[in-house]
Order: sequence, then structure tokens, then C-alpha cells
Amino acid sequence: MLNAADAEFVERLAGDLPDDTLRPAEPRYLEEPRGAWMGKSEWVALPRTVEEAATILRACQAARVGIVPYGGGTGLVGGQVSGDGPQTLVLSLERMSAIRAVYPQENVLIAEAGATLADVQAAAETESRLFPLSLASEGTARIGGNLSTNAGGVNVLRYGNARDLCLGLEAVLPDGQIWHGLRRLRKDNTGYDLRHLLIGAEGTLGIITAAALKLSPIPAGRGTAIMAVRDPASALALLSLARDQIGEAVSAFELIDRTGTDFLAEKLPDVRLPFDPMPEWMVLIEVGLPRGLVPSEALEELFVAAFDAGLVTDGLVAQSDTQRAEFWTMRESIPLANRQIGAIASHDTSVPLGALPEFIARGRKVIAAMGDFRVNCFGHVGDGNLHFNIFPPKGRNKAEFSNLKQAMTRAVHDLVHDMEGSLSAEHGIGRLKVDDLARYGDPAKLSAMRAIKSALDPAGILNPGAVLPAA
Amino acid sequence: MLNAADAEFVERLAGDLPDDTLRPAEPRYLEEPRGAWMGKSEWVALPRTVEEAATILRACQAARVGIVPYGGGTGLVGGQVSGDGPQTLVLSLERMSAIRAVYPQENVLIAEAGATLADVQAAAETESRLFPLSLASEGTARIGGNLSTNAGGVNVLRYGNARDLCLGLEAVLPDGQIWHGLRRLRKDNTGYDLRHLLIGAEGTLGIITAAALKLSPIPAGRGTAIMAVRDPASALALLSLARDQIGEAVSAFELIDRTGTDFLAEKLPDVRLPFDPMPEWMVLIEVGLPRGLVPSEALEELFVAAFDAGLVTDGLVAQSDTQRAEFWTMRESIPLANRQIGAIASHDTSVPLGALPEFIARGRKVIAAMGDFRVNCFGHVGDGNLHFNIFPPKGRNKAEFSNLKQAMTRAVHDLVHDMEGSLSAEHGIGRLKVDDLARYGDPAKLSAMRAIKSALDPAGILNPGAVLPAA
Repeated sequence: MLNAADAEFVERLAGDLPDDTLRPAEPRYLEEPRGAWMGKSEWVALPRTVEEAATILRACQAARVGIVPYGGGTGLVGGQVSGDGPQTLVLSLERMSAIRAVYPQENVLIAEAGATLADVQAAAETESRLFPLSLASEGTARIGGNLSTNAGGVNVLRYGNARDLCLGLEAVLPDGQIWHGLRRLRKDNTGYDLRHLLIGAEGTLGIITAAALKLSPIPAGRGTAIMAVRDPASALALLSLARDQIGEAVSAFELIDRTGTDFLAEKLPDVRLPFDPMPEWMVLIEVGLPRGLVPSEALEELFVAAFDAGLVTDGLVAQSDTQRAEFWTMRESIPLANRQIGAIASHDTSVPLGALPEFIARGRKVIAAMGDFRVNCFGHVGDGNLHFNIFPPKGRNKAEFSNLKQAMTRAVHDLVHDMEGSLSAEHGIGRLKVDDLARYGDPAKLSAMRAIKSALDPAGILNPGAVLPAA
Repeated sequence: MLNAADAEFVERLAGDLPDDTLRPAEPRYLEEPRGAWMGKSEWVALPRTVEEAATILRACQAARVGIVPYGGGTGLVGGQVSGDGPQTLVLSLERMSAIRAVYPQENVLIAEAGATLADVQAAAETESRLFPLSLASEGTARIGGNLSTNAGGVNVLRYGNARDLCLGLEAVLPDGQIWHGLRRLRKDNTGYDLRHLLIGAEGTLGIITAAALKLSPIPAGRGTAIMAVRDPASALALLSLARDQIGEAVSAFELIDRTGTDFLAEKLPDVRLPFDPMPEWMVLIEVGLPRGLVPSEALEELFVAAFDAGLVTDGLVAQSDTQRAEFWTMRESIPLANRQIGAIASHDTSVPLGALPEFIARGRKVIAAMGDFRVNCFGHVGDGNLHFNIFPPKGRNKAEFSNLKQAMTRAVHDLVHDMEGSLSAEHGIGRLKVDDLARYGDPAKLSAMRAIKSALDPAGILNPGAVLPAA
């Protein structure tokens, strides 16, 4: 059982740290974007160095005080706020925000955990390199949190998830030992891959304080198109065609549901929509091509082949950066429109790529059987990752249907599980899905996870109650 | 302490398994390519299914009998043979060699652990897809072993190591539980990444029985060139130039040392050498380009730019598949020539890319101070991975210098460690480098590794003495 991060503990810890390392926790550390939880911590620790972070962990370990690691606070499953149990200490990495080094020749950048994703992207760009992780909250999200949650986003198809973009870590383990693992190596087979264990562990196995990140060449030319597809199966066939014609240079392939653009028209009328009338299904395609190839030509060629194959009915290739930005604004505004409409239940799912059309059809049917709801099913179809969100009928409010929320989620997750999919494709488990993981997770994997957690953090001080139930 | 896999144990276990699952171990299970160890197991278990493998593990767990997992037996660090201690049971995956399924639209293939790497490559090619892992022993090495050792090879620059090509695993954990983790998902953030923990653990944390593997589109056109570079620094600058011009489509970038081609001339005179006289340093470059680009033109353009920049002095772009094969034969024959000359000490190192020229210079100097030795320093320079192998002076035999072997390895590993490199870039730890890992490894990481090993395999039955000292 843990002890509370009370005034006495904090006062004692403050004596071992420079002034102003510990502060009363402002409300921003206790809130999370969906408003489902409110943290109860009274204190936040703000270390400036990995050694200070280690001092904090050692003290918490000795006193059996829980810690909630805090990055940008943008997580969507409540992993950044304390749960039930004794009061925890918030550990914010915001002061460790330096870009320690960039090695353009090596395509490597070393960033501290508190650097925002946008800062990392900008530092890479200054050296004519690309850090391809990209997601809606990149101005606020911090790279330590992106790694701890193995963030996904729009470029996974080409460049992988956050874990695929990390070569090494510096981290504090639960017992306060510092792991100096900031390797800049592409090949290193010296023992268990602790890096991949901490990445995606949501701060329950260690505190990431810095990372060696993989950069890529900036593609010589980028192009963006929007194509109206007949149905989700046509979207998949279009993806295959695109990869046959363009190879791995297809960097984003996003499915957009008519429900989403209806929400835009209703709530964000300034967002420009590309067709009139809007089609039932569209895809946004982005390519990044090497020298010697013209993106707009490659996309037009793709459109012609797809049209001939009966996959697409209409299409627009961006003719300028402005138009390219417009297409992306439409895509990136959908979550905001969703929030303004107000979802009864949201789901971050993935299924095997080939099963996507069946998943969408079965999912809509299951929800239709529950009432006259609107489903907005959109997302990173190139990765099999769809956000399957359920909204009240027009003119009604989500609060009226809150009694159905749990049943809806159960129905969607049952379906995902049945189709060998994931109930958390990119957002993680946090506090929101601890019970779901226990219900649907593989028993052998869960047993290994519990054994690892107990071995590395026997007192359970790190992010208690996230991912696994608190000890 | 473990018990021996003696006749009594084997007889009892045989009763729980179909006929012929257990056999006396033929010599091939006890040998390894470098002849440094000879396994002492008398019995080999050959399961046909994951359930049979689980039965074997449960029995070994109950009786505290050690298991040595066996793939193709091609590992170079002795991980496939038993070490000291009570007699172990060899567990060979060779009968689980099916390609269970291929999903071309998803770019996914499911293979059992005993499929050879060449079988996996061929199954992908049948569906017009590429499984890019490629290494000299691919006809014999099995995919389960490739994953357990996180194999590297020649295409890491573009496609990553074995771990980067795996989406999911089926495995038996040390307690005999079966983990059904054959996910075909590109995004799945549901708990700790057990997949990456088992990959590279060299069979010490679980037995991989099947894997979901990532396929890629086959590039529309491949091209290969050999260029003579002034020195290793010019090779690096050429790599940067190549990536600026050609992007990620550079799939291999291999450095070849004049010492290596001298060995070829001496020992394998049928291998065609591209220049006369041969230059001190060459690179072999391979590109795989999308539609619309001509590989030979891209490589010629690269050569011209590199020549103008003073990086290269001569070059050949393969004009036919025959010539392309000749270039690769030269590269892939170097390890064989090395074996015929006989190295005193071999090293599988990586250093940060930018530090490579300094590493080569300092490494040669350190060895020169020990005597008139020949150094063949070659390999996957695009990944910072060099094989730094030391040979006797011409006309002398490695046996005469065996007393220096340890000092040489110490000197090279000290240097690698000093330069923040890895003492095992792609071959793993096995039995060969257990002491090196203990000496040079990060203490916090080692302590976490020991904790994980004890938590998952408290009796230490899985590959005892590999990676970590036997319990």
C-alpha cells in the first residue's frame, strides 16, 4: 500500500533539491482533455536534470509514495492524472525541454523529455531533416509523453509509431537508478530491449528523461489529394494500388466519413469542404517523393488508374500549398467538430487491414440496433486504425444517452476483439481502459506484464492504477 | 540450481507427447559455426505444435531442467549450444516450419518459427511482396532464431532490423503459458510490448513459435553500384549525398576494405573484382526505386555529384542482373575468405555513424601497436555497423597469436565503449559476450534485465548461461 505525498514528505524531499523544484500543483496538472477525471495531487515536482528526477524517485521509493509522470497533458485515456488511492506526486518534465544535440549526418536528434513534439520537428527541420511523428496536439504534447504512450498519428503508414523513431533513452528506473541508454546506434544487440519496454509503458516502469530520435530525409516533393471512394473496400483497394504505383512513399492515407464532414458543415462552417455534394466516403492521400518525380503527376496517375478500376468517383489533387493545407485542415478539424457535437462513446480501434470494411459494416449495424445514432468512423485507415465514435441523433444531446455509453463501448470492443483487433490502437490504456485490458487482453501477456511490473516496481510507485490495476 | 535432462526425465516427458517428439541429439545440434563450443545435450525435443512446445516447457519448469532453443544453428556467439551446468534439453523448432498465411493486401505474412529465412522471402515474393531481412545464412537460418537474435543483415538501412519487421508473436513463456500474440496490426497500444522483449532475448525469456511479419512493396527498379572512395570519411559523405539525392530508397551501403579484397584474391580467385588495381576503400550501394525513376540513372547522377565533390575516384554501375549479382557475390564472399585466412579475433561493432572514420583510424592504430597484423574492417557502414576482424601477418597462422586474442578484443571493445558504440551490433550476446556485457553494460539496464529474467523465469530454465550468467 502506498503512502500519501503529504506536506511532510514534500518538505523533506524539498530539502534534497534546489529551490522551487517542488510547487503546489496548479489545476492544469489535474485536468485532462476529456474531463473524465480530476487529479487529486497537491504537489508537483519539476526537475531540471535527470539527477534531480532520480533523487525524487529514490525518495518516493523509500517512502512508498506514488508518482504520476506528466508530459504535455494531452493524453486521452487519463494516464496523466492520479486515480484513486493515496495522494500522488505529479512529476512534470517540462523544465527538461532542451534539444541537446542534432547530428544531421547521422539523422539523429537528442531531445529531453519535456521538449514539445513541435519543438522536435522544428529542430529537425532547421537541419533539413524530418522528424515524422505528427499528430493534432503536437504543439502541446511533449516527446517524453509521446514515447511513453507510443504515440501514432498521421505518418505511421510510412514512418512507424513513436517507438519506431527512437534509438535510445535516458530514463530513471523505479528504484532511482539512471539508465544511460542514449544510444545513437542503428544496430545494437546487447541484451533485452529496455527501450521498447519503457516506450508504451505509460510511465509505469520508468521515467523517460531524454531520447535519441531517428530523423529522415525530407522528401524532395510532397503532394496531397482527396479522392471520393465508393466505399471502405474501395478505399483499401485504392491503398493497394497506391502502394503498387508509389511504393512506401505513401505517407498518409486517411479515411473520412460523410458524418464527419456533416459535423464540420454544422459546427465549423469556415472549414472548406472539397466537393459539393460531399461523398459518403473520401480518402486523403499524402505522398513524399524523391527527386525526379512530380507528386501531382503521380497522384493524377493514381487517380486515373483508380477511376478506371471503378474505385473512385471524384478527386482533387492539391495545386498549391494553400490547397494542401486546406485538405489537412479539413481532416484535422474533425476531432474538434466531434467534440462540439458531443460523442456518447468514442473508440480508438484497429483491426487487420483486410477486415476494415467488415468492421465498419458490422460496427454500424450493432449501433443501429441500439437506436438512431450517428457514427463517425474516420482515421488512419492505412494503419487499420479507425476512430469509431458514436453521436446522438441530430438535435439531441449526448447526456440523454449516457446510460448507453457502457453498452456501446462493450459492443464495439467485443466486435474488435472478435476480429483480432485492438481496443487501443494509439491512445494507450491509461486509466480509462484498465478494465478492458483485463477483460480482453491475452492472459499469458497479462501475467507477464504483472510479473515485469512487480519486478521493476515492487511497491507500485510509478503511475499507480495506470495500465494495470494498482497493487 | 537446475537438474539434468537425463534419460528418466526424457522418458517421462515422452509419455506426454506424440511418438518421436524426443530423439537423441545428433551432432549437428551440438556444433556451432565457429567451433568454440560443443553442446553437451543428449536429447532434442522436436515439437510439431505450440501446444507440444508448451507441454515441454511445463515439464522442464516442473523438473527444473534447462532448455536450449534451436533454430538454424547459424548464430555466431554460441547462443544455440549448451554451456556449463547440468545437461540441457535442445528444443528445435524445425518441424514448425509452415507459412501459415499470407495477406498481400495487408502486407503481412504469418510464419512458424522453423521456417527458414529463405522460405519466408520466397513466400513473400510469390505474392509480389518483399520480406527485406537478408543475410548470408538465409538458406539455413530460421525465422524464429532471426527474431530471437534480432538479426540485422544488409537491408537494415532502409527496412530496419528483424524486430522492425515483426508485428506479432506466438510464444511459449517460461512457465508454459502460450501467448497468442499474432497480431496483424500496425497500431496496438495495449500494454507492455512483450514482442520487443522476446525479440533479441536469445531464447532466455520465451520460445517464439510463430510470427506475424511485415512485408513491403517490391521496389519497381533496383540498381547496384560500386564506388571507390578516398577514405571512410568520404564514404560517410557519399552516404549523406546519396540520401539527399535518393532518399530512403538507399537500401544497402556497404564498406569494403582493400584487406578483404586481397583475401578474396588470395583465397577465392574465382570471385571477380571490379577494379584493377583495387582501391583501398570501396562502397557497394544498392537502391530500390519507385516507378518512374531509372536506378542506373540515379546512381550515375550520384557518382557524378560525388566525383565533383572529390569523394569518389572510380565507379561502376551494374549494367545487368549478372553484374549486380557479381558485385554482391564479392561482398558476400568476404566472410568466407576471412574464415579461410583465419582471424585471430573478430568483432561485431557499431558506433555512431559520425564517429566511424575515427573508430577505424583509432582501431587500426591500437592493433598496429600490438604487432604487424592485418585488419579487415568491412560491413554495413550505413548502419554504423562494422565487422572489425584481426588477422595474422601474411604467411603466419592465427594459432600462433591466440595468446593475443583476449587483449585484442579488450582493446577493440574498450574503444567501442569509449566511443558510445556497441560490442554486439547484430550477432547478440550468446555465450561469447556474457562477460563483456557484464563489464561494459549500463548497470541500471543490467539490473533491470536481471529483474525481468528472474520474474519471468525464476528457475532459469530457458537458455541458461546465455545473455546473463546462469542463476
